[in-house]
Amino acid sequence: MTAIGICAPGKRLDRRHADRLLEVMEQDPALAGISIEFHPQCFARSGHFAGDDETRLAALLECANDPTKDAVWFAHGGYGTNRIAASAIDRLGPAARDKIFLGYSDTGYFLSALYMHGIGKPVHGPMVADIRHDYGESAVKRSLHYLAGERDGLEGDLDDKPTVALNLMTLAMLCGTELMPDLSGHVVLVEEVSEHLYAIDRLFFHVTQHLGGIAGLRLGRISDVPENDRPFGASAEDIAQYWCGKAGIPYLGRADIGHDSANKIVPFGLAERASRQ
Amino acid sequence: MTAIGICAPGKRLDRRHADRLLEVMEQDPALAGISIEFHPQCFARSGHFAGDDETRLAALLECANDPTKDAVWFAHGGYGTNRIAASAIDRLGPAARDKIFLGYSDTGYFLSALYMHGIGKPVHGPMVADIRHDYGESAVKRSLHYLAGERDGLEGDLDDKPTVALNLMTLAMLCGTELMPDLSGHVVLVEEVSEHLYAIDRLFFHVTQHLGGIAGLRLGRISDVPENDRPFGASAEDIAQYWCGKAGIPYLGRADIGHDSANKIVPFGLAERASRQ
Repeated sequence: MTAIGICAPGKRLDRRHADRLLEVMEQDPALAGISIEFHPQCFARSGHFAGDDETRLAALLECANDPTKDAVWFAHGGYGTNRIAASAIDRLGPAARDKIFLGYSDTGYFLSALYMHGIGKPVHGPMVADIRHDYGESAVKRSLHYLAGERDGLEGDLDDKPTVALNLMTLAMLCGTELMPDLSGHVVLVEEVSEHLYAIDRLFFHVTQHLGGIAGLRLGRISDVPENDRPFGASAEDIAQYWCGKAGIPYLGRADIGHDSANKIVPFGLAERASRQ
Repeated sequence: MTAIGICAPGKRLDRRHADRLLEVMEQDPALAGISIEFHPQCFARSGHFAGDDETRLAALLECANDPTKDAVWFAHGGYGTNRIAASAIDRLGPAARDKIFLGYSDTGYFLSALYMHGIGKPVHGPMVADIRHDYGESAVKRSLHYLAGERDGLEGDLDDKPTVALNLMTLAMLCGTELMPDLSGHVVLVEEVSEHLYAIDRLFFHVTQHLGGIAGLRLGRISDVPENDRPFGASAEDIAQYWCGKAGIPYLGRADIGHDSANKIVPFGLAERASRQ
């Protein structure tokens, strides 16, 4: 049995998406060995967030410090994890030590902080709310199967180097802060959604100056780029290659991650790649 | 006579705005002692930019290294100055040493780099393209009168501490890069336009972790905030105070700067505040 606690450190989860997840799980016999529990905080509301900072922090700590749970799965991205990540790290107990923490996008602030402190097993992958996308069922199943011990959903080109996967904006905001792990020797995978290409260029200017010593960068999908009043004049891959070249960072090609249903699993570091079955 | 060279390190200038500036200058006898020269690069076009990187860099260097010019005035913000700022710094000659460089927003990358290297006199203030705003005439006149030696347009609450004024996104992207000056002991003024409040919060999270040791922060206008699908739950000033509080940075109140016609003049550092008349 794999027991999963679900909380929402940023944006609240729509109850319809939670219900749909339960339906999907009932219809898949391979998921019979998984139990999930939605922390009530998933559905709380306070301005932009799924409850105020104290509420979200308390729920994250309850899930992380619960010795009956094998994993914490994040319900949604949005924005807000950075506001509670440092406080959460300070209050993690022994039950958090070997847990998987699975999410991406805004929850990357906490995944990075966990990785920095060597606590738990942070993993990039689809979240509950991804069920709302076309083919979203396949996205949430990828994470559930991973949490159950299967490894079919891993990003296909992970090599022998430690790896992290982060949203580009999240990575840019992490750089130089108390939540930023040392990524020397790592392959860094980045993806982005709903940002103009000039903003992508600006973010690459920033992050490549902070990523000296990494083993290389791989570019996930840059999706839903808003139309601007004038064309940027370069593609997202041109941009990544340009800034990597300037900073002496090896550009290692594309990565199969993004804000979409095809988003693959990327465990932080080198662990949690082998099947548990 | 004050001779001003104008170039556009980011976005191209509309010819109508250049023509309008000339009209405004003709109608103001107090500006008779000023001559301006638009570098042809102001009107160039290459994708997102006013000419490609080489073209913009060459024009910036021609204006900066021209011994017959007293000041370089930037035509427009937009995006792109960060792509040429470091190369420009490396190639500035003696004629740049005592020049005023006046702009804000995206041109803050170069103003910061100048300040970091102790080259010239970087000044935050309205640019040529600000003439397009309501009351834009008053904005461009404020900069022209400043360049002519008057000091009426200075931000009203500058104190005895060295000061810089930067767009919040520009400052966030500068943090930790080769263009970032040491701002210890400085009062830092920030402003922003067209960003959601959650993005403002995220930027404050980032910049306050990089601004340890500053004398304090003052908040300019946060304007044209797009409407989101849910209210953020805190004002821009709440956000600034919150993150300053967490980082131990004194929050010193509001500042009279922003992406608007009321945008006041802020010389970087302590110099260039006294009238030359």
